[in-house]
Amino acid sequence: MKLGQATIKDIARELNVSSSTVSRALKDYPGISDETKRKVKELAEKLNYRPNAVALSLRKSKSFTLGVIIPEVVHFFFSTVISGIEEVAYANGYNVILCQTNEKLQRELSSIDTMLANQIDGLLVSYSKETEEFSHFSKLMAQNFPIVFFDRVPEIENTVNVTVNDFQGAYDATKHLISQGYTSIAHLAGPKNLTISKKRMDGYQAALRDHGLEINPDWILPCPMGTQEESMKIIEKLYEKGGDFPNGFFASNDIAAAGAMMALKKLGYKIPKQVGVVGFSNWQFCSMIDPPLSTVAQPGFKMGEKATQLLLEMIDNKERSYDSTKTVVLETELLIRKSSVK
Amino acid sequence: MKLGQATIKDIARELNVSSSTVSRALKDYPGISDETKRKVKELAEKLNYRPNAVALSLRKSKSFTLGVIIPEVVHFFFSTVISGIEEVAYANGYNVILCQTNEKLQRELSSIDTMLANQIDGLLVSYSKETEEFSHFSKLMAQNFPIVFFDRVPEIENTVNVTVNDFQGAYDATKHLISQGYTSIAHLAGPKNLTISKKRMDGYQAALRDHGLEINPDWILPCPMGTQEESMKIIEKLYEKGGDFPNGFFASNDIAAAGAMMALKKLGYKIPKQVGVVGFSNWQFCSMIDPPLSTVAQPGFKMGEKATQLLLEMIDNKERSYDSTKTVVLETELLIRKSSVK
Repeated sequence: MKLGQATIKDIARELNVSSSTVSRALKDYPGISDETKRKVKELAEKLNYRPNAVALSLRKSKSFTLGVIIPEVVHFFFSTVISGIEEVAYANGYNVILCQTNEKLQRELSSIDTMLANQIDGLLVSYSKETEEFSHFSKLMAQNFPIVFFDRVPEIENTVNVTVNDFQGAYDATKHLISQGYTSIAHLAGPKNLTISKKRMDGYQAALRDHGLEINPDWILPCPMGTQEESMKIIEKLYEKGGDFPNGFFASNDIAAAGAMMALKKLGYKIPKQVGVVGFSNWQFCSMIDPPLSTVAQPGFKMGEKATQLLLEMIDNKERSYDSTKTVVLETELLIRKSSVK
Repeated sequence: MKLGQATIKDIARELNVSSSTVSRALKDYPGISDETKRKVKELAEKLNYRPNAVALSLRKSKSFTLGVIIPEVVHFFFSTVISGIEEVAYANGYNVILCQTNEKLQRELSSIDTMLANQIDGLLVSYSKETEEFSHFSKLMAQNFPIVFFDRVPEIENTVNVTVNDFQGAYDATKHLISQGYTSIAHLAGPKNLTISKKRMDGYQAALRDHGLEINPDWILPCPMGTQEESMKIIEKLYEKGGDFPNGFFASNDIAAAGAMMALKKLGYKIPKQVGVVGFSNWQFCSMIDPPLSTVAQPGFKMGEKATQLLLEMIDNKERSYDSTKTVVLETELLIRKSSVK
């Protein structure tokens, strides 16, 4: 499916006439032969031409404003992405307006309406945890409106994305725990509808498999909200259940990891002596808690920079169309602190 | 100085004629007597009437979008304010767009331009640390454009503000340290140009005075950036200087307090046994660090709610004018954790 729509230029090129001839033919202006009008209209129909798309892509007055839709501004990772976005935007004479969805689909939809009403030149998006259907983005792409997705890549075709290597990050974290002698490792997993959660889960499982360790389904602990309270409850419940207890935890986010550490300490476990813990993201607090938390650092600033560079290229390229998926994958870095070194 | 401008309605009321008569008289339309035209124009002159202000205040097509200008989205306090703003805005059918100034005046100026170009109905502002002159706000107020300032109140007349009782918060924190037996208390102070820094400093000094303790100018430690690194260096430098060393620290923000704790621990001090520490804001990490940090909690969510309620009232009130300063002061709450209890 080619989401990009034909423009007046495409029709003109195909028929070897001028753009203004096409434009006037489509509007049934006088001075154009009936034969030309018929050819233009037939081809327009065939190429799925929509005036709307052209209006957008040929719009002359740029607003020099980029819109950013983000789940939560307080999330340390997203705030570093915003800084990267602003750095490139301001350097190129663009302003940035942000909308926070608070992980709610309804707010995502109304944020897009607000942004478009405000005549932004392009959109940078990380969609909400509630978003499972992406037609509100496909519609914009069908009009050739410039969108770059970051961190969370939607399951539709021909998108432009910047993401981090979540699989490798999770693999590295789990492998590190194994190399430190923690061999029964549980995973505090993120929300199922996010690709990043699936990739972190895959990385965790691949590392276990590659090192000859069994995957225990009871130790895959869904922690969809990723809050401290949720993760504390999960650890306490697992403990109360009795039986084998993990000696390592890899959490798909730092707050869940910090919650796990609090619960483990409360239960009397020594970290890192008896249990090792690794998080994901490298929030500011990781180096401030006791013991300092090992984590997978994501290149948030770089992600913001790269996504904005791609978006500005799309804005500048009047001939743009969404004809293939383009994904830039940035590498993570494992930061080893005391929480996982025996 | 009355910043609010007269509207057509004001002139009509004063002269006991209809608004449309005033409007036509100002535009020199036929059908209005020369006498009436003269009276209208004289009064318009006298009342400092500007068509622009009227155009803005009588604008019929509302965008139902509120603009928020904020120094840093990653700051936990500001993120809770944003949540409060969004709660009230969405409940009333408004969307919210944010601009982050990153504490830079230049970005504040361009953010205001962007917001206005986007036809917001009103503005919520917490200005940057660099902002020492406020004409970019006075100009908007002179056109009767709805603005509410939160947290940081500018030094201009007739503003509408929501702030927290920073003096009392700082007083309570310092008094608490004294009551726990810490009697030589230093202050890690915020940037000088912010009223909140001055008020926290005043509260600290008043508590010392009221309890018969001397104010030691060497222990008023400027920490304008408020980062962990800055505060660590300040503590290390104070220690290297030799002589008396404080046994209590009240920091004007939590990150500086956390940095102080790290430096103190590194120097071998036991917290809270030998030194007590209290911060300001109640960032999420306060309960996660070791020992958990006592702090002054600011009602961020409530501040966002209140500021938005005031802004919506201004937007709905077509007769609004800036004729007096109106400041809502919200109370803080001292949260006592282990870092300050012997």
